[in-house]
Amino acid sequence: MEHTHGHSHTERADACAPAATARSVSEQLAIVLGSVDPLPPVRVELDEASGLVLAEDVLTVTDTPPFDNSAMDGYAVIRADLLEASAHNPITLPVVADLAAGTDQNPALAPGQVARIMTGAPIPDGADAVVPIEDTDQGTEQVTIVRAPEPAAHVRRAGEDAHAGDRVLRSGSVLWPTRVAAAASAGTSSVLVHPAPRVAVISTGSELVAPGSPTRRGQIPDSNSFLLSAAVAEAGGIPARIGAVPDDDDVLRAVLTELAGRVDVIVLSGGVSVGAYDVVKAVLKPLGTVDFGPVKMQPGKPQGFGRWPSTGNAPGPLIFALPGNPVSAYVSFEVFVRPALRRLLGHETLQRRTVTATVVDGWRSPPGRAQFMPVIVTHRTDGTEDGIEARPASRGGSGSHLVAGLAQSNGLAIIAEDTTQVRGGDLITVMLTS
Amino acid sequence: MEHTHGHSHTERADACAPAATARSVSEQLAIVLGSVDPLPPVRVELDEASGLVLAEDVLTVTDTPPFDNSAMDGYAVIRADLLEASAHNPITLPVVADLAAGTDQNPALAPGQVARIMTGAPIPDGADAVVPIEDTDQGTEQVTIVRAPEPAAHVRRAGEDAHAGDRVLRSGSVLWPTRVAAAASAGTSSVLVHPAPRVAVISTGSELVAPGSPTRRGQIPDSNSFLLSAAVAEAGGIPARIGAVPDDDDVLRAVLTELAGRVDVIVLSGGVSVGAYDVVKAVLKPLGTVDFGPVKMQPGKPQGFGRWPSTGNAPGPLIFALPGNPVSAYVSFEVFVRPALRRLLGHETLQRRTVTATVVDGWRSPPGRAQFMPVIVTHRTDGTEDGIEARPASRGGSGSHLVAGLAQSNGLAIIAEDTTQVRGGDLITVMLTS
Repeated sequence: MEHTHGHSHTERADACAPAATARSVSEQLAIVLGSVDPLPPVRVELDEASGLVLAEDVLTVTDTPPFDNSAMDGYAVIRADLLEASAHNPITLPVVADLAAGTDQNPALAPGQVARIMTGAPIPDGADAVVPIEDTDQGTEQVTIVRAPEPAAHVRRAGEDAHAGDRVLRSGSVLWPTRVAAAASAGTSSVLVHPAPRVAVISTGSELVAPGSPTRRGQIPDSNSFLLSAAVAEAGGIPARIGAVPDDDDVLRAVLTELAGRVDVIVLSGGVSVGAYDVVKAVLKPLGTVDFGPVKMQPGKPQGFGRWPSTGNAPGPLIFALPGNPVSAYVSFEVFVRPALRRLLGHETLQRRTVTATVVDGWRSPPGRAQFMPVIVTHRTDGTEDGIEARPASRGGSGSHLVAGLAQSNGLAIIAEDTTQVRGGDLITVMLTS
Repeated sequence: MEHTHGHSHTERADACAPAATARSVSEQLAIVLGSVDPLPPVRVELDEASGLVLAEDVLTVTDTPPFDNSAMDGYAVIRADLLEASAHNPITLPVVADLAAGTDQNPALAPGQVARIMTGAPIPDGADAVVPIEDTDQGTEQVTIVRAPEPAAHVRRAGEDAHAGDRVLRSGSVLWPTRVAAAASAGTSSVLVHPAPRVAVISTGSELVAPGSPTRRGQIPDSNSFLLSAAVAEAGGIPARIGAVPDDDDVLRAVLTELAGRVDVIVLSGGVSVGAYDVVKAVLKPLGTVDFGPVKMQPGKPQGFGRWPSTGNAPGPLIFALPGNPVSAYVSFEVFVRPALRRLLGHETLQRRTVTATVVDGWRSPPGRAQFMPVIVTHRTDGTEDGIEARPASRGGSGSHLVAGLAQSNGLAIIAEDTTQVRGGDLITVMLTS
């Protein structure tokens, strides 16, 4: 079942009717990514660009370097004057100028003349090599030179790095620090990038109170909004942690309506099951734009994906309705939300790194559902990946409520649908989450 | 030569006289890390804690979960009433309460009674199992049950995850998203963490202008302050990009004096060589608190490390005086500054991940100096690390000015001091930088 946006509500209601059969994880991911494009580019100052993805090629404004300059502190010379220079035959020449970095002086050298020159200063007309100060007596009126320079020694040529108009960075590149530097060096002060998505994070459940608040019987601290906000930030998004909303259709609807024009994505947790108070399902399902077809995975089977209805020209925010159990919410975030956020950011690589690991303690996996088991990945011996081991982070297995165990996990073991028993010694694929 | 802080300036001046012999990279790193402790802890709200390192154990405030609750939407039952229930022998019982998540109701069940219950709601007194709604007719006045529950089925016990006072996170843990969630779940709203260091970044050189500004002969765009600010942010620090300062002792001294009480670290680039205008060396060396002993590395041989003098009880900011060439500055940042920033943040792991790679195109390395060559690391075939290859990012080799090539590199090959030739097919160690 294809999941697209921009159709009328009527079409959507049909398209998003409950699936006759549950979807596999890869089918669900294809539906999610098929609905997500990189956010429209914006121009930002270089100081704000680090870590974002370029949406344009960056071309050099001028040659880099823009003029011949010295690679050393020393003396700009005419090499022909010094072919015979050596420790046994020092040659002394008059110093006619002193060229600091940043100078615009250009004192043309006549034969027999030299200019003191600092690293980065422009090579004066006539000079064709630089003698480092280590090969001189460091004189300022005249200088004695004890070594003949090689041709063009220590001269950085204009355009040696790049010519004006050359592409120094291509569209789609991640602006890691050295690329920010390359853009600066090319003479660029701002770049066109895909912006970071603004992501509202909402927990639902009348049992939830803010951590640190007193709880009475029936209440527990909200942890999912912290979990998912931190995960959004780690993925490169800008989280807006709304916190907990009670199981009240009108309240949730009002919160979502208020957010619709202000964020790119809304991540909900809880209220997606089959209970009488499943507020997320109650509010979103009638819209016809959010699909709750079950996914063949454990944990995370019940969840929804779609969009809040558009109210203008722009599409409504993406909506991920994740299960309420923290482990289920976390796994669903890693499997579906994080790749979608990276697509919004313009990244080409959407998935985390995986490794092959050897199982230490086995566990069971449900038939017909892909299992994502929080594991602790360790290096057996020498730190190479040959020696990677994985064991369940909670002795109790993949139970969805084991937050403390989850906190120690640094990977998710990915167990295929048709596997029902994972045994010690098995080789498995683990998605590394930290 | 040990490098400690807190001595008088006189002692420091002696201790930091030019080293008789240059230091190895590991000696220099030991000096740097020997001067750096994690920043004094501060208490922050959980929303601000993601990615930081805990400076306290986090204990649960109450049992987790704090009360017996239902793991499913269904019916809280007395199991003894339903031992004979099956599809062929459905049992119908009266529903005496409806328990939503968050309720504080506790309707003690008498034999033969059940209560409708939602996931997370407290198990009422008397009940000892939960029948999922899938095994019922979902009745509200009375309900028909078609399967006998297992003992304690779908009941999450109080304290199953953790008991009040249990340690759920240990001091020194990095607060990745699932750990932020564990702290929230434990009932904690704030945590004691090592704060992110505030890092001022200054380029020096009268030739430098802001990128995008018009340049005349002799001027080039400042790229190092962008490079190093982005690198600081990537390492977890909070950069304050000061930009370019001219080669003027008084100006630089005034800028540093102004910054001294406001940042934890100052990263300078340029002005550390032997030239007549080497402003950083000119300003810092007389202080006696910054050491400019050369390091046996390429690039990065000339650089300084120390502290701005203390003006009160707190030590002055750490100072890293890096070379001006962008590649040299970047390599020195990766080798010395980044580990120091991570130590300030309280991380136990200071170094980046390394891999073993096969050299594709060889290059030369200087004798007696460790070489850090920007390389492009690729996976040869199947994405396992067995097939990792490395080639120099710039055809011109490790020349310090090759910013555009550096921008394509995703690793630094680490070549030992005694190696002078790296050949195709050699196995080398590469620090992965992205």
